[in-house]
Amino acid sequence: MAIIPPQTHTNLTKLSQNIKDAFTIENAFESSPIRERQFTASSKHLTLDYSKELIDKHVIDELLSFAEHRKLNYKIQHLFEGAYLNLSEARQALHSALRSSDIHTPHFKLIQNTLNKMSAFAWSIINGNRLSHTQKKIKHIIHVGVGGSDLGPKMATFALKHYLHPNAPEIHFLSNIDPNDANQALDQLNPDHTLIIICSKTFTTLETLENANLARKWLSSRVSSDKIHLHLAAVTSSPEKAIEFGIDEESIFPMWDWVGGRFSLWSAIGLSLMIGIGPDNFQLLLSGARDMDNHFKTTPLDQNIPVIMALKAFWYSNYLHLNAHSIIAYDSLLEYFPNFLQQLDMESLGKSVDINNNPIQLSTGQVIWGGVGTNSQHSFHQLLHQGTVKSSIEFLLPLTSDANPAQHKWMIANCLAQSETLALGTKAINETMSNDCTSIEGNKPHSIIFYEKMTPEILGSLIACYEHKVFAHSVLLNINPFDQWGVELGKQLCKKYIQQVDQPTPKDKSTMYNNILNQYLKYKK
Amino acid sequence: MAIIPPQTHTNLTKLSQNIKDAFTIENAFESSPIRERQFTASSKHLTLDYSKELIDKHVIDELLSFAEHRKLNYKIQHLFEGAYLNLSEARQALHSALRSSDIHTPHFKLIQNTLNKMSAFAWSIINGNRLSHTQKKIKHIIHVGVGGSDLGPKMATFALKHYLHPNAPEIHFLSNIDPNDANQALDQLNPDHTLIIICSKTFTTLETLENANLARKWLSSRVSSDKIHLHLAAVTSSPEKAIEFGIDEESIFPMWDWVGGRFSLWSAIGLSLMIGIGPDNFQLLLSGARDMDNHFKTTPLDQNIPVIMALKAFWYSNYLHLNAHSIIAYDSLLEYFPNFLQQLDMESLGKSVDINNNPIQLSTGQVIWGGVGTNSQHSFHQLLHQGTVKSSIEFLLPLTSDANPAQHKWMIANCLAQSETLALGTKAINETMSNDCTSIEGNKPHSIIFYEKMTPEILGSLIACYEHKVFAHSVLLNINPFDQWGVELGKQLCKKYIQQVDQPTPKDKSTMYNNILNQYLKYKK
Repeated sequence: MAIIPPQTHTNLTKLSQNIKDAFTIENAFESSPIRERQFTASSKHLTLDYSKELIDKHVIDELLSFAEHRKLNYKIQHLFEGAYLNLSEARQALHSALRSSDIHTPHFKLIQNTLNKMSAFAWSIINGNRLSHTQKKIKHIIHVGVGGSDLGPKMATFALKHYLHPNAPEIHFLSNIDPNDANQALDQLNPDHTLIIICSKTFTTLETLENANLARKWLSSRVSSDKIHLHLAAVTSSPEKAIEFGIDEESIFPMWDWVGGRFSLWSAIGLSLMIGIGPDNFQLLLSGARDMDNHFKTTPLDQNIPVIMALKAFWYSNYLHLNAHSIIAYDSLLEYFPNFLQQLDMESLGKSVDINNNPIQLSTGQVIWGGVGTNSQHSFHQLLHQGTVKSSIEFLLPLTSDANPAQHKWMIANCLAQSETLALGTKAINETMSNDCTSIEGNKPHSIIFYEKMTPEILGSLIACYEHKVFAHSVLLNINPFDQWGVELGKQLCKKYIQQVDQPTPKDKSTMYNNILNQYLKYKK
Repeated sequence: MAIIPPQTHTNLTKLSQNIKDAFTIENAFESSPIRERQFTASSKHLTLDYSKELIDKHVIDELLSFAEHRKLNYKIQHLFEGAYLNLSEARQALHSALRSSDIHTPHFKLIQNTLNKMSAFAWSIINGNRLSHTQKKIKHIIHVGVGGSDLGPKMATFALKHYLHPNAPEIHFLSNIDPNDANQALDQLNPDHTLIIICSKTFTTLETLENANLARKWLSSRVSSDKIHLHLAAVTSSPEKAIEFGIDEESIFPMWDWVGGRFSLWSAIGLSLMIGIGPDNFQLLLSGARDMDNHFKTTPLDQNIPVIMALKAFWYSNYLHLNAHSIIAYDSLLEYFPNFLQQLDMESLGKSVDINNNPIQLSTGQVIWGGVGTNSQHSFHQLLHQGTVKSSIEFLLPLTSDANPAQHKWMIANCLAQSETLALGTKAINETMSNDCTSIEGNKPHSIIFYEKMTPEILGSLIACYEHKVFAHSVLLNINPFDQWGVELGKQLCKKYIQQVDQPTPKDKSTMYNNILNQYLKYKK
């Protein structure tokens, strides 16, 4: 474990043995009246209670000293200065600049100009200044994108449904190349008052271009070719390709090399979201993220929420062998948040070489999975409480709700009850365990991240918090969180197979899929 | 490992060492021209290609002999005969009876009578014989249920969207106690032509009753109290409670002790689904499940799809330490299938005592997670290809599509490209690995389950296949897959916390949640 100094590794190994042998969450609370306070960190919008983790002061101190050894503090500063490089692609990683209010931030003017262009466009749709080919108001927007061009905007548009602008069109998302997805999105709408926003950095992404072509064809069933441009917009770093597709230059918004797809919600990729919630709420989203940026930049490591989350993940995956991490939101507005986090965390940290291309001996990214409470209690919590596989867990808990504050108490009570069940097991109500199928062992680690309620600012903070957790975690591991070379080979092989299914040749001995391909030909039309 | 005979355990341990040291999927295909055929099993509707697993003939043979030692064959027969008991709750487990066509099946008449009552009710809605309080056709149904009363019907209604009856009302699902969920379901609809179907075995489930109360209140804003019964139906084993709630006896459908919630899609819990797709398609769903029942009952273990899936899961979790299992459907109609499977598998197998209440030394249920391809390629596949954590994987692949058969080729090509990337890594295109951030190691185990396309029969088969995989897996582990004691304690503790949040008392020293509770009070209204 070259990244970890030998003494640190020895210490952490010994500490993990202590934790396994002698630590229980129950005892930790009994022996320390300040445990809850001691293991809580707060930012302007979020509080992290990590007192129910398999962690004590010695563990945290050792992890913090490792973070210092990794120069985490400096690297955080580098991130904000644009000095930190996406080395394997020789690019900056400057997504945090997208929400900066400091005019000295790199690309500041470019970013502000783009935000202004986005706002003007959004207001023109909301206010009905930009109209359809029949001079009617745009009522629906189909956002076409996949991966980082889809998951963030979709998650946020759903989460902020109480903040949708009353005059905004309804926003729909089309991502999958599965023809069912396009049918689902298009069949229910009328081209006459629908705007298509095509989001693809390269403007060559297979799924997005196929769907864009389907959408343009669908538009042209009602809209004449000289007016179709009124129904199209694009977000891309290849504007020339978008123009060729038939999109007006004024309806094309830039993407930049220095923003990775999974960090791009704050850029023009958020255009559909901005139209949905209105530019003012979009500014609040940015401002909430900026609050978290400041927290990450200026708070000592031992009180720094994303840093603590990264230390936990590093500790569990490398010393306690918890290779899965569950996100359970007691907030049904966050239904798509676990999906969003899967990309953000797993695509960033699912690596096996370090930034110098040396094989890394550590356990890198965890499997991220989860769901929404209370539904999850009636689904997979059984395994969390009584299974043999262990997963680290983060609960997300709003303290109140715009929907129905009185009924919201059930969310609090259920989340705390699940937390106590995980922490104490059967002992929560009964000192003696019966040791049968009803017994719950407890001592299952988890944190609770709580916040007032889902608002644009708080969502901005929450997303930025996980972005920074991913970055801090990557610094501990010494890996590049901004590339994703593992997805390239599949794209190349897809071309091979599309040829095989289009023009099947005599059985190729090297294929491993004779059966599937032969069966496929039976159904091919 | 008392469940496993010592010699078997020794053999499996040795075999797993061989696999780790000397087996690659690449070599396995190179050295055996019949590997694809040898490791493929077929039923009427499904084909399982497990030739890309970390498995060879010796492993399969040893696992099969263990299955015989566990008397799996007999236990499968017992399951269908109703002899296999849910021991800890002293109940039968007879969900397969729900689709039996054999009049000697236990409860056969009761089941047929219920199906007939359901069909009559469904047709009366579809044909407009059962009308709203204003004598109009029912246009919307809100299915209220949670967990097993929600996940199956919701998943299937979405999956069968090409099979919805043209005159059927639209089906909506309301499950979470989060007030946002109820708002989402109710705000967009009009009580005048909406029917509420309340699904709760006990008719006391917190979420379902709270939502049922909200829905009834919402109805009563438009519907007078003497006519509200026209807008209500229930599925429950406590009809007296449903009657008390204001539901007509003729609109109450039974649930039975011998059907667990997560296996209940085929029962009256499927009423909303039946109304949506029509009784004829519902019968096809049952018939597809029956085909899989016959396959499971009559096929030798070494060709038996659910058995092989169970053996794989047992092998990976106990001998190769893969504690997560990913379901990736190249079929966006199966968007909710991974969620459905989470409950089915994790609630059934997330146990740590055997059927005699002895602690079990084995690794039981895996963490089930996943998503829909091709979207998942742009999200978490990076980790599957280049991460350090390993997860076993099942791809679900339809060979054609009702939506757009021509575009469907992309789903095939992408799925096979991902499979080959997982199997061979960089060597798929290049003999020499560059050993840098672009290198993919390969040798990642996975299966492909393929089928013609999503139809009621095939969906029935697919669900039954996973039900039986879970059962076979539980037999190997000697655990009870039909109980879920781990969720009881949380329900009890929830009552404690609902009191604390309703009537906060002076700080209770024993609580671990002073901070959260104090913050909550600030926002409480």
